[in-house]
Amino acid sequence: MERPADRPADPSVAGPANRPTNRHFAAGREFSLIESLFDESHFSRSGEGLGDDAYLLKAGGETWAESTDASVEGIHYRLDWATPAEALEKALLSNLSDINAMGGRTALAFLALGAPAAWGDPEFASLGEAIRGLERRFGFRVGGGDTVRTPSEGSRPMAGFFSITVLGPIRGRPLLRSNARPGHGIYVSGTLGSAAAGLALLERGHGRGRPSAASPAEAAIAAHLSPSPPLGLGPFLASLPGPAAAIDLSDGLSSELWHLSRQSGCRMAVEWGKLPYERELIAAGCGRPEDARDRVLHGGEDYQLLFTGEFSGADLEAMGAHARVTRIGTVEEGAGVVLREPGGRESGLEPGGWSH
Amino acid sequence: MERPADRPADPSVAGPANRPTNRHFAAGREFSLIESLFDESHFSRSGEGLGDDAYLLKAGGETWAESTDASVEGIHYRLDWATPAEALEKALLSNLSDINAMGGRTALAFLALGAPAAWGDPEFASLGEAIRGLERRFGFRVGGGDTVRTPSEGSRPMAGFFSITVLGPIRGRPLLRSNARPGHGIYVSGTLGSAAAGLALLERGHGRGRPSAASPAEAAIAAHLSPSPPLGLGPFLASLPGPAAAIDLSDGLSSELWHLSRQSGCRMAVEWGKLPYERELIAAGCGRPEDARDRVLHGGEDYQLLFTGEFSGADLEAMGAHARVTRIGTVEEGAGVVLREPGGRESGLEPGGWSH
Repeated sequence: MERPADRPADPSVAGPANRPTNRHFAAGREFSLIESLFDESHFSRSGEGLGDDAYLLKAGGETWAESTDASVEGIHYRLDWATPAEALEKALLSNLSDINAMGGRTALAFLALGAPAAWGDPEFASLGEAIRGLERRFGFRVGGGDTVRTPSEGSRPMAGFFSITVLGPIRGRPLLRSNARPGHGIYVSGTLGSAAAGLALLERGHGRGRPSAASPAEAAIAAHLSPSPPLGLGPFLASLPGPAAAIDLSDGLSSELWHLSRQSGCRMAVEWGKLPYERELIAAGCGRPEDARDRVLHGGEDYQLLFTGEFSGADLEAMGAHARVTRIGTVEEGAGVVLREPGGRESGLEPGGWSH
Repeated sequence: MERPADRPADPSVAGPANRPTNRHFAAGREFSLIESLFDESHFSRSGEGLGDDAYLLKAGGETWAESTDASVEGIHYRLDWATPAEALEKALLSNLSDINAMGGRTALAFLALGAPAAWGDPEFASLGEAIRGLERRFGFRVGGGDTVRTPSEGSRPMAGFFSITVLGPIRGRPLLRSNARPGHGIYVSGTLGSAAAGLALLERGHGRGRPSAASPAEAAIAAHLSPSPPLGLGPFLASLPGPAAAIDLSDGLSSELWHLSRQSGCRMAVEWGKLPYERELIAAGCGRPEDARDRVLHGGEDYQLLFTGEFSGADLEAMGAHARVTRIGTVEEGAGVVLREPGGRESGLEPGGWSH
């Protein structure tokens, strides 16, 4: 299949997936094959929203963002780490994060639920509670969906899956990845690397703590299992008069900086000394100091917002109502991503080193 | 979970599924459990579109219909009967049919594709071709989606799945299931029972013919594997000044008549002698005469339109440009569904007898 001439050759940028497929469990050559399926149909004709976290749909006088993601048991979630309801919550939160990253607020969700044979009344009851809890908490509505049983083969029940489509209106200016401009500040919400530290602990067999437990290890695991995307921040940024670029931190800071760099045609320069992370929490998940650095720079699934813009002091203060926001660098003329160390050393930052 | 007081107790009507889950392969008590998940969140707050083939979304001054369906390998499609591309085509067509049944024309589709380990370049290439072919044929666009690998456990690769969300604007008056009124004519497009006859042949191990083959058995199999929903008819009905009710024939005539009866609060009276079906094609799929009757009355997956309204001669003539349309009965005061035989005998018609 031919790739349109104006597309970069990097498969991590191509493809229809509104959010790149989670690399923590599985990745490889075949993913670019699968994603290339939609290249021609998607990218040769769409304009705004191309390669963004969500598709932009114009309906009447409104702009709606729409995103679809699938999560498969054993690939995107593990039921020895999370209950079905927790896995569904996380899947839904990652979708809400996609709409947030476009500047929208999710109004509607549609769920396709593939239920393995082992699920019975308790699982369904807790899934229903989780859905209603999320609807109340985030003000969206489940408009419908589909529920199917996944087949059992002999004594081995097959994996379940969730496929979620979310939609929400954008009031203001969509936060396109192509909106970054030289002179913009580069910002992140929340902290970096916590979810990756939690994943590392789970992979090493660390048991789950109680949700209220305060140890750094348990906080890291909670960050992985139950992310907290700053869902008011995207709509706030969209409401500002100047253009802002945004992307959610699903694949890790370095990968997302590269997306912004490529789609805006700018250089992203960030300072190691300014990156916000919780030292104890990261340390709990890492044996070696270099692992800690890798988690902060490349760890995925924090679902915080990486964004750029020119903001007034009043704007930055108002953002504080939605999330802790830290300026980590500046958009410059040029290309690529550079990392500046406290001593003045500067090096190129390649995308997603740790997860491969 | 409590069911809102104004909901009927019949689980085949309740639940969030825009289209009832295909019963031909799997159904049972657990489906009502799964569907009850969404009852409270969905039905206690939604108005128009409640229990319809698609959800109605108001955006700006427009009304859009939206539907989500999941298809799982081994449950909804079998790769010994159809190629992956054919299975995806059928899944997409059944979604386009849902939007058609609301009076809309699909403008956008989002696909979540769960690809089993066995799929490689040939499968992906043919899926891409199928998607682009459908886009061209039906004038919609794939806005995006997600592609994931389903996990392999040892030497047993897991099933694949498709989850599809479609959206389209309705120009005119949505074809709600609750729009049937006493005095309306009851109509169907196309013919009844062909897809069920084809399914019966496939289940008995009948091999597939070439798509162009003209034997009744091969035509029946083609009707099952590759449905032809009358996609212009729904938008045409929505454009008429008077209210029309519609539903797509996914579960079979008797079930769909019951949906219209319940949701409109009317009696649906149909005449056996007027039901359109292809005698040779039905006969090819059935050993016994009573099986033929069952396929016509209860066979699913024809994806034709069942609709009611008061139509002028000019309206009916114009419908002919979209599909063969046959009047099969009349909406009456009362409740339930009755079947009138040529000799004047009348009996109640229960939903979905054959498929259980």
